Amino acid sequence: MNKLKGAAIIGQSGGPTSVINASAAGVFLEALNQPNVTKVYGAAHGIRGILNEEFYDINQEDIKELELLKTTPSSSIGSVRYKLKDLNVDDSEYKKLLEVFKKYDIRYFFYNGGNDSMDTCNKISKFMKNSGYECYCMGVPKTIDNDLAVTDHCPGYASAAKYVATTLMELKCDATVYDTPMVAVVEIMGRNAGWLTAAAQLAVYKGAGPDLIYLPEIPFDLDKFYADVEKKYKENNGQVIIAVSEGIKTKEGKYVPELVADSIAVDAFGHKQMGGTAQVLADLLKNKLNVKVRPIEFSLIQRCAQHLASKVDVEEAFNAGREAVKAATSGITDYMIGFKRHMDNGVYSCEYIKVPLEEVANAEKTVPLEWINKDGTGLTQAYVDYALPLIQGDAAAPLEDGLPRFAKLKKVFVDKK
Amino acid sequence: MNKLKGAAIIGQSGGPTSVINASAAGVFLEALNQPNVTKVYGAAHGIRGILNEEFYDINQEDIKELELLKTTPSSSIGSVRYKLKDLNVDDSEYKKLLEVFKKYDIRYFFYNGGNDSMDTCNKISKFMKNSGYECYCMGVPKTIDNDLAVTDHCPGYASAAKYVATTLMELKCDATVYDTPMVAVVEIMGRNAGWLTAAAQLAVYKGAGPDLIYLPEIPFDLDKFYADVEKKYKENNGQVIIAVSEGIKTKEGKYVPELVADSIAVDAFGHKQMGGTAQVLADLLKNKLNVKVRPIEFSLIQRCAQHLASKVDVEEAFNAGREAVKAATSGITDYMIGFKRHMDNGVYSCEYIKVPLEEVANAEKTVPLEWINKDGTGLTQAYVDYALPLIQGDAAAPLEDGLPRFAKLKKVFVDKK
Repeated sequence: MNKLKGAAIIGQSGGPTSVINASAAGVFLEALNQPNVTKVYGAAHGIRGILNEEFYDINQEDIKELELLKTTPSSSIGSVRYKLKDLNVDDSEYKKLLEVFKKYDIRYFFYNGGNDSMDTCNKISKFMKNSGYECYCMGVPKTIDNDLAVTDHCPGYASAAKYVATTLMELKCDATVYDTPMVAVVEIMGRNAGWLTAAAQLAVYKGAGPDLIYLPEIPFDLDKFYADVEKKYKENNGQVIIAVSEGIKTKEGKYVPELVADSIAVDAFGHKQMGGTAQVLADLLKNKLNVKVRPIEFSLIQRCAQHLASKVDVEEAFNAGREAVKAATSGITDYMIGFKRHMDNGVYSCEYIKVPLEEVANAEKTVPLEWINKDGTGLTQAYVDYALPLIQGDAAAPLEDGLPRFAKLKKVFVDKK
Repeated sequence: MNKLKGAAIIGQSGGPTSVINASAAGVFLEALNQPNVTKVYGAAHGIRGILNEEFYDINQEDIKELELLKTTPSSSIGSVRYKLKDLNVDDSEYKKLLEVFKKYDIRYFFYNGGNDSMDTCNKISKFMKNSGYECYCMGVPKTIDNDLAVTDHCPGYASAAKYVATTLMELKCDATVYDTPMVAVVEIMGRNAGWLTAAAQLAVYKGAGPDLIYLPEIPFDLDKFYADVEKKYKENNGQVIIAVSEGIKTKEGKYVPELVADSIAVDAFGHKQMGGTAQVLADLLKNKLNVKVRPIEFSLIQRCAQHLASKVDVEEAFNAGREAVKAATSGITDYMIGFKRHMDNGVYSCEYIKVPLEEVANAEKTVPLEWINKDGTGLTQAYVDYALPLIQGDAAAPLEDGLPRFAKLKKVFVDKK
């Protein structure tokens, strides 16, 4: 049992999710309870906050507000997209981090993010170890992209998936209301991995989903796309809803907006008007079918729609934070908390496991090809079976005046030493 | 007391809302209970379904599914955008309607929609009266635009407003997460009336709203807009969220996309690439501020986001349908059910009133100018006091597999006579 006393710090990194703060709450509340944690800090804007010695003093926060972090979307202490340089190229930032860790007696370091963030955590962990500075570093996973290696799934994914499926069900009700043609192209986040777009299949499973689903795992073929849509258009009296991942690309590696790049419109300022995937596909279909086609982007909403958070997701995100603190304070370092799925007579449960940081740093897990139907326009039941247990339960924030009551942190900066 | 026996029919018309089916449920369930209603029909796609004699037999539906309509978005029996011709120009459709009413012994007619639909209802009501055919016609209000005259507010508005406010609060959490500039322009529905965009003020009231709000009630001035945004940009370290109504226009009556129409981009097919309001403003700001500006459109989602429906709204929508049936079957005709607000020691209640159809047909109620701040970039507390009671309570559909369980109607067509 590790008895090293010292301060704990957590940084949030990468794109927001509905539950990244739930993991922070797990870290904060567990760390505040650990006798060998002398101080709990929150780094403002991730690793940059540590480099700049900008920490919030979590010991000054109300426990009630920290609890409310479980149902507050995005990253309350600020996020960052910042990649540390290669140690062999430039070690100045690493040295600065070590200096800061020593100065504030930071012995427990938690980094919450996706694969880039796990890379950062891995680099710091290794540097501290090689420097002989005793410090326990743990990664806490987070990404709506669900693309971290080894772990069964990632906190943040299920809530975003629940948003995608629910909203598509509602859009289906809306878009099929007239007896006139209506084609909609819905763009869903996911650059290389189609996990979030795959959630459209959950709406299909419930009988109210899109007609066609395209993931980046399958090379995109525009002629096949036209044929797919025209077929559905005829079958459904002109009403077709299409879900596409923002990251679909041809076998030559071209993203959709690049398909029309040569003939792309130029605006009044001479800039190329490079639309998003949905916009470009809508323009192409409009021209092909000669009907109105509506592009719909879930945009930032899909990753911060806390009002549709999955209870399972919130609980697992919270527990991932707690487990990271328990592990670190018991002397474990250089791991990320991962999830292992158990199904016992149809009942889902989640085991928290430890995954070596180097196995998740920069690795990317995509949707298994055997879960995509032969036609490349939908998912199999295997995906539905995978996703359904994760999206269960409602975990929306408590209401005040009929609107969500999010956490209000004092965010008191620690005096710089 | 009217004792006329006969069939009742309801048509849904215009754009969907989260609660238009709640009103249908009110009509169906009340009509099924009225001894002098012999049959209950649902017109497929509104007035067109009546003209084509395409009715669903509501007597064959399960009561449980009709109850679920309260929490099923959009128009389950299909909607339509169809304006009857002027009676003096062409009376053929009116004669057809009378023929259909007689053939199916329709004595109770309910039409659920906005001001165009109330115009249709008014025309039919007057024609039936002048024809000497005994028939009781009642309008049931519905519109996210909240722009019907006389009534304090309209079913559908509060749920859409709750969506707008909640989502903006979440977007505020998301968009301010990095310590880098971030400008977002969020486009909200409302062509002539800014009621729905005004709901952005509720997010401001809760401390997490947009920085600037533009309604169509105030003429839009691009130079003032630039100045407003630049001021906020400096004050907020480059983080600015702007809510705009799709219908904002200059004092000359030009909509935003028309401002750039001369210099507008042309796509590969030679079509002008006329973006939406948010897209055009984002392009203009990008060029002016030289920063990334993200356009976000709530698109169809804002009007069908049943998962954020207001309980008050669902109940009032349901009751509006019931009250319409109660009125008609007690011998009242030629009115729309309206809402009158009562505040008793700060406690809100709604009285159901009868508004003559001709007073609401085609009339349009906009946001009072005195509720808009002097600067034209936000709303006063008077608006917040108006809106808050309406968005109270959660009325999301029951969950099944973690996703909404919407009504499943059998939709059995009545045999044509």
